[in-house]
Amino acid sequence: MSNTIIGPALSNMPWEDRPAGSQDVLWRYSQNPVIPRDATPRSNSIFNSAAIPYKGKFAGVFRVDDTRRYMNLHVGHSEDGITWDIEPEPIEWQFDDEELATFVHRYDPRVVWLEDRYYVTWCNGYHGPTIGIGYTHDFKDFHFVENAFLPFNRNGVLFPRKINGKFAMVSRPSDNGHTPFGDIYYSESPDMVHWGKHRWVMGTKPWTWQSTKIGAGPIPIETTEGWLMIYHGVLTSCNGYVSQADQPSARSTAPGL
Amino acid sequence: MSNTIIGPALSNMPWEDRPAGSQDVLWRYSQNPVIPRDATPRSNSIFNSAAIPYKGKFAGVFRVDDTRRYMNLHVGHSEDGITWDIEPEPIEWQFDDEELATFVHRYDPRVVWLEDRYYVTWCNGYHGPTIGIGYTHDFKDFHFVENAFLPFNRNGVLFPRKINGKFAMVSRPSDNGHTPFGDIYYSESPDMVHWGKHRWVMGTKPWTWQSTKIGAGPIPIETTEGWLMIYHGVLTSCNGYVSQADQPSARSTAPGL
Amino acid sequence: MSNTIIGPALSNMPWEDRPAGSQDVLWRYSQNPVIPRDATPRSNSIFNSAAIPYKGKFAGVFRVDDTRRYMNLHVGHSEDGITWDIEPEPIEWQFDDEELATFVHRYDPRVVWLEDRYYVTWCNGYHGPTIGIGYTHDFKDFHFVENAFLPFNRNGVLFPRKINGKFAMVSRPSDNGHTPFGDIYYSESPDMVHWGKHRWVMGTKPWTWQSTKIGAGPIPIETTEGWLMIYHGVLTSCNGYVSQADQPSARSTAPGL
Amino acid sequence: MSNTIIGPALSNMPWEDRPAGSQDVLWRYSQNPVIPRDATPRSNSIFNSAAIPYKGKFAGVFRVDDTRRYMNLHVGHSEDGITWDIEPEPIEWQFDDEELATFVHRYDPRVVWLEDRYYVTWCNGYHGPTIGIGYTHDFKDFHFVENAFLPFNRNGVLFPRKINGKFAMVSRPSDNGHTPFGDIYYSESPDMVHWGKHRWVMGTKPWTWQSTKIGAGPIPIETTEGWLMIYHGVLTSCNGYVSQADQPSARSTAPGL
Amino acid sequence: MSNTIIGPALSNMPWEDRPAGSQDVLWRYSQNPVIPRDATPRSNSIFNSAAIPYKGKFAGVFRVDDTRRYMNLHVGHSEDGITWDIEPEPIEWQFDDEELATFVHRYDPRVVWLEDRYYVTWCNGYHGPTIGIGYTHDFKDFHFVENAFLPFNRNGVLFPRKINGKFAMVSRPSDNGHTPFGDIYYSESPDMVHWGKHRWVMGTKPWTWQSTKIGAGPIPIETTEGWLMIYHGVLTSCNGYVSQADQPSARSTAPGL
Amino acid sequence: MSNTIIGPALSNMPWEDRPAGSQDVLWRYSQNPVIPRDATPRSNSIFNSAAIPYKGKFAGVFRVDDTRRYMNLHVGHSEDGITWDIEPEPIEWQFDDEELATFVHRYDPRVVWLEDRYYVTWCNGYHGPTIGIGYTHDFKDFHFVENAFLPFNRNGVLFPRKINGKFAMVSRPSDNGHTPFGDIYYSESPDMVHWGKHRWVMGTKPWTWQSTKIGAGPIPIETTEGWLMIYHGVLTSCNGYVSQADQPSARSTAPGL
Repeated sequence: MSNTIIGPALSNMPWEDRPAGSQDVLWRYSQNPVIPRDATPRSNSIFNSAAIPYKGKFAGVFRVDDTRRYMNLHVGHSEDGITWDIEPEPIEWQFDDEELATFVHRYDPRVVWLEDRYYVTWCNGYHGPTIGIGYTHDFKDFHFVENAFLPFNRNGVLFPRKINGKFAMVSRPSDNGHTPFGDIYYSESPDMVHWGKHRWVMGTKPWTWQSTKIGAGPIPIETTEGWLMIYHGVLTSCNGYVSQADQPSARSTAPGL
Repeated sequence: MSNTIIGPALSNMPWEDRPAGSQDVLWRYSQNPVIPRDATPRSNSIFNSAAIPYKGKFAGVFRVDDTRRYMNLHVGHSEDGITWDIEPEPIEWQFDDEELATFVHRYDPRVVWLEDRYYVTWCNGYHGPTIGIGYTHDFKDFHFVENAFLPFNRNGVLFPRKINGKFAMVSRPSDNGHTPFGDIYYSESPDMVHWGKHRWVMGTKPWTWQSTKIGAGPIPIETTEGWLMIYHGVLTSCNGYVSQADQPSARSTAPGL
Repeated sequence: MSNTIIGPALSNMPWEDRPAGSQDVLWRYSQNPVIPRDATPRSNSIFNSAAIPYKGKFAGVFRVDDTRRYMNLHVGHSEDGITWDIEPEPIEWQFDDEELATFVHRYDPRVVWLEDRYYVTWCNGYHGPTIGIGYTHDFKDFHFVENAFLPFNRNGVLFPRKINGKFAMVSRPSDNGHTPFGDIYYSESPDMVHWGKHRWVMGTKPWTWQSTKIGAGPIPIETTEGWLMIYHGVLTSCNGYVSQADQPSARSTAPGL
Repeated sequence: MSNTIIGPALSNMPWEDRPAGSQDVLWRYSQNPVIPRDATPRSNSIFNSAAIPYKGKFAGVFRVDDTRRYMNLHVGHSEDGITWDIEPEPIEWQFDDEELATFVHRYDPRVVWLEDRYYVTWCNGYHGPTIGIGYTHDFKDFHFVENAFLPFNRNGVLFPRKINGKFAMVSRPSDNGHTPFGDIYYSESPDMVHWGKHRWVMGTKPWTWQSTKIGAGPIPIETTEGWLMIYHGVLTSCNGYVSQADQPSARSTAPGL
Repeated sequence: MSNTIIGPALSNMPWEDRPAGSQDVLWRYSQNPVIPRDATPRSNSIFNSAAIPYKGKFAGVFRVDDTRRYMNLHVGHSEDGITWDIEPEPIEWQFDDEELATFVHRYDPRVVWLEDRYYVTWCNGYHGPTIGIGYTHDFKDFHFVENAFLPFNRNGVLFPRKINGKFAMVSRPSDNGHTPFGDIYYSESPDMVHWGKHRWVMGTKPWTWQSTKIGAGPIPIETTEGWLMIYHGVLTSCNGYVSQADQPSARSTAPGL
Repeated sequence: MSNTIIGPALSNMPWEDRPAGSQDVLWRYSQNPVIPRDATPRSNSIFNSAAIPYKGKFAGVFRVDDTRRYMNLHVGHSEDGITWDIEPEPIEWQFDDEELATFVHRYDPRVVWLEDRYYVTWCNGYHGPTIGIGYTHDFKDFHFVENAFLPFNRNGVLFPRKINGKFAMVSRPSDNGHTPFGDIYYSESPDMVHWGKHRWVMGTKPWTWQSTKIGAGPIPIETTEGWLMIYHGVLTSCNGYVSQADQPSARSTAPGL
């Protein structure tokens, strides 16, 4: 029953022990929030951060909503993963096709080291929300690749290595609003541009914390027992959505493995 | 201003002249319905037909809803394109992946001769409606390829030849219900399996017959002036949707041409 | 596999043979409508009739909506079950509790001979729709018993004899509007006033004619194989509800048998 | 105008005087919350408690939602009515009919001493929410009686003695969701199994704290002036439901008195 | 109880006697439709006509929806009130303020002779539907006055003379969609531009033909007993709205009389 | 670029400097709330205050919701604009037309000195919310003038002087509920009773803090650059409406200036 993470050790990963008496599988950092909502001059809120080890320190891409409520992505850097320096200006993407360059909104990023670069995926506005794919080598120049899917989609998360020779992504098909449904699907691609072989992975469960919709969280973690995907669920109360994050799936083995 | 269809002449295409006094661009066949609703023993309705010239005669794939309201695809044959013999049993698709073989619903087919075979696309139930792709060489054996997109999608229509070396399809991203919105998008594929480079083509117009949603109709027709795509629009009245079909677009030039 | 109806033969039951070529289990009367919509001076429509053999002829209770769209119950008589004389005035119920006498609406009646009298059930307005129970001995004097259930309920149908010593009814719990859901439940009563031991019988099936809601139709028919309950189903199209009536259940054995 | 509670004095009832300067009819306990949300190891929240004097101390049945958001009922005991020991495992009901034993959800209990035992009512999931009835003699063994009503119902509250020889309950017919309506009805039963003689008691009032729905709270209190029923109301704001509890009705005389 | 219309006799008013056996207060013309849907070359439907005696013959303003579903107003002329010549082009209004000239939609006209000219009111699109007011002297030149009210409004109907020295109009405040509610209000104006003293006149009645909304129909008719206002009502069925027109109010005395 | 407020200096206006480091155009008072929610004996909340200089001190009209959730207007007085004495009883309006005197709700007042008296506008319940207009000379006697518009309307705000010889008001046409839309319109009146020449001023912007609806805030401020109107916006989150107040428009020049 031993289960070991596959991958390099992260010796400087910030860590706080489980509180005394707690039996929780995940626990909150006692000094939350790590990122204050006004970490940039015009930010109204900063959240859904995507942090990654970078050159012995940490880099990240952050969702910053400004006071106009524009949602955009900003780069941040940190020595220790706790204290962050968020850039006041959003990332300026380089586009091959100017039609894709029109800004609508960009939010909820994920970052992963994959093959030879850092890939970023996020919810990208293009006639509706879909999954934008881009990359950077240095957290300075960012190249936009393509929207992976037709609208409407959210929570697109790349796997950290090719699976059976293909790039792999999980995502949650949505609608054009606040989406009162949502399951997780798996897709694969030879080139990060064309995606196919879409397969349903897992869905909602009535009368639970994940009764309305679910969505993948951070980059899946490969273990000796399979892929560990941490996902969030949403239930609908009489006062709207209640989101419950950081629930580990027992073990979600990606299709094709 | 001359505009000519590119492609072989269809000498036996059924034809009826425009009614005297009519200025309509399209007109209805005076002997409608061509296909009666009870053309098979258990059919409740038969519509959204996809007919195509085949060996000097005609073949087609038809949406047949049976009295249980199961929606499925049936083959039909005709000598003249007017009198049809619809098979009483639905098409039995051959699947490489058994997970895709579970029948949910299959409806609204289109058929096109493309490269070396007849491709069929339709609205295919797989954890929600999406675009199924299959093919046949003889209207007897039918092979399922893949679902082109993640759910939710309808009105997926292939172009009759590759464009810039890629297969090309227009489709309408939808939601999981009766979808009170819908624009037409263009996607391309190297292999009919992986699809990308999704581009928005055209959308709805308020206070018109196409104010709620639009969707591509039959296979686009290539002309000397560009691609002619006939599409339908839906408006929402106080009694539900009103669908108005067969409105020609002025001229819809496919992206990349 | 022989299956025989339990009960007295009805020699004068109107009958029309199945149309030639038809394989339907149920078929429409070729001279429909049996009851014209203006069979009474102020009626706007007359439907959902409950007819029963009575003294060698036929009697019935009919839903009559007048031009104000008030929904009420009228008595009708017929020599042959085909030609009906509907009374122009609605039934005047006799109430023991005046609070229950306030007219809101009464519609969709069923009539059954049970023990020693003719019981009528219908959808009765009392701070919302519920199932009213009343009886008559002669189709002249009608006594109101009670509302069987709390609102909201429709399609309450009594079984034609006691089951395990109790009166038995199927019904469909609803909401206070057009009710986009609905399953059939079974309840029992020692006295027609107090009802309990509610059990779920059957529900809806997605992607079929009965995907939105179902409801019992006429009085269940006892056969040597069990109870035959004919019910209707509703599906939701993009233009509202589509009701499909007269679908026989394969065999619905009442609980407790 | 003197109004006295009918019933035995409760000398050890926890009490806190009205705050100085307050004119409120009801006031909050200054040491709230009495029950912390993590009083059991896996609880996410604990509320809508039903406490009752028991053997000179106090016992109760509590709604405990665990971190999966399963809603279930737990027993608790207290010396003083303030400090409670909630059992970590939910009540295991004994069922005569196994069909009723399938757990869906159980929440919002009420407890009353009635005739010879402690009756519990709660919102019980059985193909939709309805009112479950059970009883215990000792807060150890719990017997399930029946669901009082067809779905959909919530806030079922028994009267603490028979009225006119019948058990009596108020309840709120609901729908299968968050129910944007709701009045209080009165029902009676000879045997706790079969319920009837349903009568409307009171409804909502527009533009007030009780404009969306109302529901009975704890067990009604008999006084020399009639029954005192404390109920709650819900209004709908632009951010969902706002619930306002503990509003005394002026005087609600039960029907039949 | 004698009730006489106040106003000049209309000797050439088209008339058809009540059908034998009918007790209806209003009855349909046996040769309906008077106006075919294709009375102009591009019309998809023509309805809600406003006809008026004009120079011994008849003139009118008609709602013509073209095949694009643009809703606009057209003039028509008739010798006998039965056979109409509808102009193929819509009315071109003359505007003092160009901001008001942007065409959105114009539909459901009424025409009345008032003081010294023919006034037209209709549902006019201006950032939402409201009541446009215009006039003509000759059914050739049409002048736009102003929108009487802020959006959202429909069914604005002028009285045929000033009341207490003011112009008078009834209308139905609406919302920006298909409006599931609607009562009739009375407003007055010194100058056709500024309107005030808004008073509620009459509302809907549950469980009737007028349960969803009501709206004034043609110009009110003055009688010796008061103003006769013919209005229409809408109820909501499970398949959308059902409109029932031409129901006479018993007698609606305008406020201020 | 200099911009100066037109009007008398308010030497005793309460003021607090911008917090150090803040670049905000507007900032919150550090001692909020100015008015506690229980400033009157039966108040549940007090907000949307309309304060104005009065006889060297300050007077105001306040929205007070009592514990029944009745919304009404109360007078308040203050020496310094910070410490307020709110009257426990609501304003008793004097009505010329008793039909208008029926209390439904009155909320969200604005007060302005205009010509010779203090005008009050507020959201007034009269068969739906609309804009009530009244006035006072002394904050003791209050006279009701009229409802400016037909329902449904909210956020009616008078300009502090006549414009082009007419009274001027901005308002937001609404619907009869929580109104998921809303633009600002301008109207004018010769007499405070009849209103017309309605013009659209500004609307919502997608994907911003003002994406659902907007509404004028306090009385517009005249500057040498034009009128400064401070307005609020609402966006719709997955948990209902989020209101963001006190956003200055760049410069909103009233029509006609």
